Amino acid sequence: MTRDDGRARLWDLPYPSGGGGRPRREQYSPGAMRDVRMRGFRERTSVEDAVALLERRTTALATESVAVRDAVGRVAAESVRARMPVPHFARAAMDGWAVVGESTFGATTYSPASLRVVGDARPGRPYSGAIRLGEAIAIATGAPVPDGADAVLMAEHGEWVGTDAVRVHSPVPPGKHVGPVGEDVQAGDVVVRKGRVLRPQDAGLLASVGVGAVAVVRRPTVRVLITGDELMPPGSTPEGSRIVDSNGIVLDALSRRDGVVTCTIEYVRDGRLEVESALAGAQEDVVLVSGGSSVGPEDHAPRVLSEIGELAVHGVAMRPSSPAGFGFLGARPVFLLPGNPVSCLCAYEFFAGPTIRALGGLPRAWPHARRSAPLASKIVSELGRVDYVRVKLDGDRVAPVMTSGASILSSTTIADGVVIVGADREGYREGETVTVLLYDPWGAIT
Amino acid sequence: MTRDDGRARLWDLPYPSGGGGRPRREQYSPGAMRDVRMRGFRERTSVEDAVALLERRTTALATESVAVRDAVGRVAAESVRARMPVPHFARAAMDGWAVVGESTFGATTYSPASLRVVGDARPGRPYSGAIRLGEAIAIATGAPVPDGADAVLMAEHGEWVGTDAVRVHSPVPPGKHVGPVGEDVQAGDVVVRKGRVLRPQDAGLLASVGVGAVAVVRRPTVRVLITGDELMPPGSTPEGSRIVDSNGIVLDALSRRDGVVTCTIEYVRDGRLEVESALAGAQEDVVLVSGGSSVGPEDHAPRVLSEIGELAVHGVAMRPSSPAGFGFLGARPVFLLPGNPVSCLCAYEFFAGPTIRALGGLPRAWPHARRSAPLASKIVSELGRVDYVRVKLDGDRVAPVMTSGASILSSTTIADGVVIVGADREGYREGETVTVLLYDPWGAIT
Repeated sequence: MTRDDGRARLWDLPYPSGGGGRPRREQYSPGAMRDVRMRGFRERTSVEDAVALLERRTTALATESVAVRDAVGRVAAESVRARMPVPHFARAAMDGWAVVGESTFGATTYSPASLRVVGDARPGRPYSGAIRLGEAIAIATGAPVPDGADAVLMAEHGEWVGTDAVRVHSPVPPGKHVGPVGEDVQAGDVVVRKGRVLRPQDAGLLASVGVGAVAVVRRPTVRVLITGDELMPPGSTPEGSRIVDSNGIVLDALSRRDGVVTCTIEYVRDGRLEVESALAGAQEDVVLVSGGSSVGPEDHAPRVLSEIGELAVHGVAMRPSSPAGFGFLGARPVFLLPGNPVSCLCAYEFFAGPTIRALGGLPRAWPHARRSAPLASKIVSELGRVDYVRVKLDGDRVAPVMTSGASILSSTTIADGVVIVGADREGYREGETVTVLLYDPWGAIT
Repeated sequence: MTRDDGRARLWDLPYPSGGGGRPRREQYSPGAMRDVRMRGFRERTSVEDAVALLERRTTALATESVAVRDAVGRVAAESVRARMPVPHFARAAMDGWAVVGESTFGATTYSPASLRVVGDARPGRPYSGAIRLGEAIAIATGAPVPDGADAVLMAEHGEWVGTDAVRVHSPVPPGKHVGPVGEDVQAGDVVVRKGRVLRPQDAGLLASVGVGAVAVVRRPTVRVLITGDELMPPGSTPEGSRIVDSNGIVLDALSRRDGVVTCTIEYVRDGRLEVESALAGAQEDVVLVSGGSSVGPEDHAPRVLSEIGELAVHGVAMRPSSPAGFGFLGARPVFLLPGNPVSCLCAYEFFAGPTIRALGGLPRAWPHARRSAPLASKIVSELGRVDYVRVKLDGDRVAPVMTSGASILSSTTIADGVVIVGADREGYREGETVTVLLYDPWGAIT
């Protein structure tokens, strides 16, 4: 992802830390696999190192061709040049009469020029002949200006005399209201640069220059493995010791936000063989494992991943989501997301989201709308740890949400967004200005 | 659309004017239909009046029920209360051992307590009995805390002695690491309020409380009528006097951004009967007519709309898009968008976009990410007119894009966004801070 205007570093920022700048990539050293079940994490990887590892190990997927109408939001896999100009003929920029400008020189209210109207030109129905001095044709916006004509008199500035003449009260300089060939795009112009996230108008411009299909980065597929005997799919009623899974819904929606084309949710029973079978069977570009990533007796995913693939990070210096991890099956990333719903959301945003966007060619940077405002009360963190702090906008101030346990999903529905406290800070003081990453795009409007 | 935090007025702002506040609704007076073809507009409606009229005449569509997984991004049509608490049983918040806290009182490194481990509890596989003083069960995060137990000793803080005892070095107070019933949601709590744009976590929380489907506002359908004999569909090669339409692609993508479920594009030949047949035949919630809205000989749409329905506004005091208009077929809005691509985009954003969002229950406010910065050079406008000025971010400053004709689509692909100059301003001075509405969400990251 490159840009012309020097903002590449900003776009590349892997996460919106309160400070610290670029990840110090040279500091990463993957730890040897340890079985941490029921013994806890001895050391945790820093968020920066974890993110830097993902940046090194993941890159955009292959290219595919899509129709321009389907290209909006996709990422151009190559630059596209115009093979022809837009417009490819001189066109009227106004409704009125095409004239030879010289015919109108000296025209005034007291001594108007009268031009003979010899035909008309409408878009798609050009006037086939040429006009001469003293002649005009009625012309509509967008129609080709006929040979001989070099200006357009606006409808409001001329006056029909009968049905075959127009009276002109002031001169029309040559070139007036004529859009020349290539006014919008010249043949050979770069219409779209490689890496561009295509906007509606980019797709429109591609169509204008005669491009029907465009090479874009393929969108990733995702499989979500929801592990846990206690979990029932959405639509079930909680009963006994069983609860309804919410992580699948959240991960489905977030991954679609980040450009995923299909997200398949699979429920997996607790058990080493079940987890291994599900992981080994996943064919998607990305696997998200929800639950079973920590140090409990049923937390099989880290060990299974280390055996059938590679466990690169397990345990991160952050709150929530400290049991998060990730690794690879071949080149395909596998994210181990804690089962607690806030931890799952948080670990997705820090690790899976940027990677999924990058696979589809999008910027790794978080896509949230932002708003800066002073804190209504302090936020306490720890040096060396990154915190994901849910906050509420309270008038012109930002208030941390008090019920902040990792299992309290309602803390993220009460919140308007989050403040990220970087590892280089012990927190923020009351009154200090912080940047809120908003959960809702309309929350940014002030 | 209402909110609790006093920002309702901000959310309701129909367009991001530089000033002027709420539309002065009492000032609107619809003009009588006039045939302005080849005579020009005598007077134009103000943007504020046009927007206020749309606000009065359009409202959210009917309600439908969707599965919670499909509800993200949709708007809740009614408030939803939890019928049961989350969790509906006391649960372990950590991996470790469930204990009777009192059993550990007085435990120290020198005088540890030893508890007999009588069973285990995992999520979905609870311990069915009750434990007593001096007993423990191994427990995993999320499992029900068994009867008798009132605290959880973290895995890191206990030590297995053989396979049936655990050694404890410090007391565990009752309640420690136990998530009580209703910790996340109490039965009867409002989980989602009417009017809420549902986030991933809202859908997740609905699933958690046993809700499988939710009432949301129906998403609108759109028909786009592309008028003009000169226009060919995307994928064609421009030739002779014919060009390839770009407005259909742009309107398709923008309407999908604004929540439209299906957008059908129809190409319509110039001609009164053709336009009338297409307009009368459209069954969609919204009709967007591209081209044929101005004062040229083939601009049939305004007159046809006034005859088979109602032409409410034709000609608006804005630049570009001054020939824009809109009206109604019954209660269904019809937008007359100029054929020039920048005008089409601009008129969509001011009139069609907010209306389409409102039909789907979304805020009318523009969804663009915003960024404030000083102007690198002045912007000149006119009192009484609203201007849509394409700008480029140039380092820390905002530069107007020079090639600003309404027919120059590339001006919107070169631009990073737009500055809106309200009708109450003659422009902005060099160095004055303006708000840019960004075409790309990642453009907001600074």
